[in-house]
Amino acid sequence: MTDPAAALREILGPKGWLSGHDAEPYQRDWLNRHGVAPLGVARPADTSEVASVVKVCREAGLAVVPQGGNTGLCGGAVTEQQNAVIVSLSRMTAIGKPDLDSGSIAVEAGVVLAALHEALEPHSLMFPMHLGAEGSARIGGLIGTNAGGSQAFRFGMMQDLVLGLEVVTPDGAIWDGMRAVQKDNAGYQLRKLFCGAEGTLGIVTRAVLRLYPTPRQQAGALLVMPDFAAAVSFGAFLRAEAGEFLTGLEFFCDLGLELALKHLPDLSYQLETRGDVYLLVELASGSQRVPLDEILGSALEWGMEQGLVLDGALATSGARRAQFWRLREEQPEGQRLEGDQLKHDISVPPGAIARFIEAGAKVCDDILPGVRINPFGHLGDGNIHYNLSPPEGRADFDGKAGQFAEALSALATEMGGSFAAEHGLGRAKIAMADRNRGPVERELMARLKGALDPKGTMNPGVLVRPPQ
Amino acid sequence: MTDPAAALREILGPKGWLSGHDAEPYQRDWLNRHGVAPLGVARPADTSEVASVVKVCREAGLAVVPQGGNTGLCGGAVTEQQNAVIVSLSRMTAIGKPDLDSGSIAVEAGVVLAALHEALEPHSLMFPMHLGAEGSARIGGLIGTNAGGSQAFRFGMMQDLVLGLEVVTPDGAIWDGMRAVQKDNAGYQLRKLFCGAEGTLGIVTRAVLRLYPTPRQQAGALLVMPDFAAAVSFGAFLRAEAGEFLTGLEFFCDLGLELALKHLPDLSYQLETRGDVYLLVELASGSQRVPLDEILGSALEWGMEQGLVLDGALATSGARRAQFWRLREEQPEGQRLEGDQLKHDISVPPGAIARFIEAGAKVCDDILPGVRINPFGHLGDGNIHYNLSPPEGRADFDGKAGQFAEALSALATEMGGSFAAEHGLGRAKIAMADRNRGPVERELMARLKGALDPKGTMNPGVLVRPPQ
Repeated sequence: MTDPAAALREILGPKGWLSGHDAEPYQRDWLNRHGVAPLGVARPADTSEVASVVKVCREAGLAVVPQGGNTGLCGGAVTEQQNAVIVSLSRMTAIGKPDLDSGSIAVEAGVVLAALHEALEPHSLMFPMHLGAEGSARIGGLIGTNAGGSQAFRFGMMQDLVLGLEVVTPDGAIWDGMRAVQKDNAGYQLRKLFCGAEGTLGIVTRAVLRLYPTPRQQAGALLVMPDFAAAVSFGAFLRAEAGEFLTGLEFFCDLGLELALKHLPDLSYQLETRGDVYLLVELASGSQRVPLDEILGSALEWGMEQGLVLDGALATSGARRAQFWRLREEQPEGQRLEGDQLKHDISVPPGAIARFIEAGAKVCDDILPGVRINPFGHLGDGNIHYNLSPPEGRADFDGKAGQFAEALSALATEMGGSFAAEHGLGRAKIAMADRNRGPVERELMARLKGALDPKGTMNPGVLVRPPQ
Repeated sequence: MTDPAAALREILGPKGWLSGHDAEPYQRDWLNRHGVAPLGVARPADTSEVASVVKVCREAGLAVVPQGGNTGLCGGAVTEQQNAVIVSLSRMTAIGKPDLDSGSIAVEAGVVLAALHEALEPHSLMFPMHLGAEGSARIGGLIGTNAGGSQAFRFGMMQDLVLGLEVVTPDGAIWDGMRAVQKDNAGYQLRKLFCGAEGTLGIVTRAVLRLYPTPRQQAGALLVMPDFAAAVSFGAFLRAEAGEFLTGLEFFCDLGLELALKHLPDLSYQLETRGDVYLLVELASGSQRVPLDEILGSALEWGMEQGLVLDGALATSGARRAQFWRLREEQPEGQRLEGDQLKHDISVPPGAIARFIEAGAKVCDDILPGVRINPFGHLGDGNIHYNLSPPEGRADFDGKAGQFAEALSALATEMGGSFAAEHGLGRAKIAMADRNRGPVERELMARLKGALDPKGTMNPGVLVRPPQ
């Protein structure tokens, strides 16, 4: 058998095959927790090159690890074994012409989310996926992890926004599922199955995405609430009263605000009142005839009358809205700058958020008294980024990271939610999945993996445990 | 081995096991095209009984055919082999208490869609799935076929509305996936995979469904358009201008209107103008502050100025809206009463509807000159129920049904659409799938089937071809 590295260099050319020092930037995950040096990094220029790479690796018995923007938080896009090839989609960045009448667009998997947003702007169309990593995250990775983000409660997760897919299978065959229709019930929903499969069933190379018209007006407000119960009640009221317009419903806590203000000196909070919880509301409409500000203002008034809202301010301009959003968006950075932290990606039914926060606080304080709890996230879909900082005066968690993760995941499971809401399992959460999800579920997943990737060469060690 | 019928009667009791004459109502599909007598019909009372039935059948080598309301159009809920047990979910009709703050509800698979609508009414919540068969179709069947209906372009298909599932696997194990969260990326999206699997991978026994607040006001209009190109352009305009409110965007043709008026004497058409195409528009909002009628009225005005709309009438009351809707809803009945007909369940990218209609007409006329073409359906998602009546003076299609189906499915495929938009494959369209979808796609599906149902006992002959 020929040297697979030589064969890959031959197929891909010098721009398409990186090894040694050149491969290093691809090696570690974003949190710098996972990853050893691969045999090399393949950077194919098109789908047929991806297929060729997969075939060579298959014959040579090499693992294949697809990588998008490498912004994942669970270590799913790097390798823990050396006889592996990372397949970076970063050279496949073509963006098709949007279909204006249909509201869809075909893109290659390596397109960066922010680049797609930009490309759509002149067409008055938008792709409604927004998340912190959008400047680096690539479409293929977003599909592989079934990304959610801040507008998922309104427009859906990636699985809801993908109309068609092209995938290179673990055999190196190309599945052309690039249809551009929502309604396609011609068999199993493969396009959905590959969303969230984290590259373990094949490599997504292209996709047809669903687009929405860009709204012509927006309104926003920052609200100060006494507690989570109030936030939940107000959220339910807003869904009924302004559900069609609601594009943002983000929450954060006073501790998170405090940390962000402390560590990011250019950040400012301009309301007079502080509360336990803050809610960031955003409405948008395609029609100029909708009195968005009035709708939001009167909801705010109602909330104050009911005692659900302590204080609030409407964003009177786009600049003001951006200021409000930064308070939420800088939450992760503020906490990071505070020192050591633990992150948990929880979801619970939106109505159960307050109960989760209360029960979670008790659980955490039992594990490490004084641990500082900083949940923020997406109220509309119950997605809580439940982050911890050490107790005041401590620099670490006394080795209790596993205990926190265990207890919080069990609590989310018990409440009908998930311990892996939008970040996926990757390498980091397989054991947690085995514990929290019954054997029937894990067995079904193992069987799917075995059926589509019988040799287990596609992103091994991610999502499901390899057979012993 | 004991007699399996006796074992099943023992497990299920007399109400739960029907055979002979009693089983006959379950035997044939709705279009009366498929179905032989099964060994019997199991009507389990709960999930554990479903699991027991599956286990008995598995041991006895009997096929298991899940059946909901048996309203499917592709023969997927009846058996073509006699050593089979139909498992009717019709006794599992429990509806849980809706979670008002979260917007979700747990139901058993046998709940009739209309009964769910009714149960939700007092709570000001709705389940946004509407289709002709809603008075008989059951949730499990809607999930199994991944139903779409008239609001899918706005709220999604069943796969988008299912948060959690409980499924009895082909082994008789119970998968408890009854989570109540949208964001759950803890592995493969099993909940999506079972949607549209047509009972070939297991039996859906319970589901957690996503609910939306009931709108507090609605507006509607009936529009007369010169042609499909105008309808497509006006549709794109409406999506940009009133996308948040749009809950209905149905089209039908003048031939369909003619047939409905001819065969349904109580139906009346009250506009003065007739056109080639009619559009039924429905807007809804949770806020009373949105000037829905004004938004719709001015869109209509714009359409008239542009020559896209020939005539139109706003529905000034709920009764008037219902009258307009009946014109669309009676399309299938009108055509049925006209005599022989051929149905095709097509989807194309919404912007391509006019092109499909034009090309389809040419194709059909080449096959049988004078054949009468009556497309109606859902403009928002490009779903065309492309139905044919014989040429004037003929009673049949001259044996050319297969040719029409073949040609139209190829055309839809070529245009990036589907020949099985919302009705599924069942038994009727497997050969069509094999022809229109490449071998890679069909092979992936066969492998999924083999992985989850290695003995092939679950609804054999549906969706995928059994291994030879």
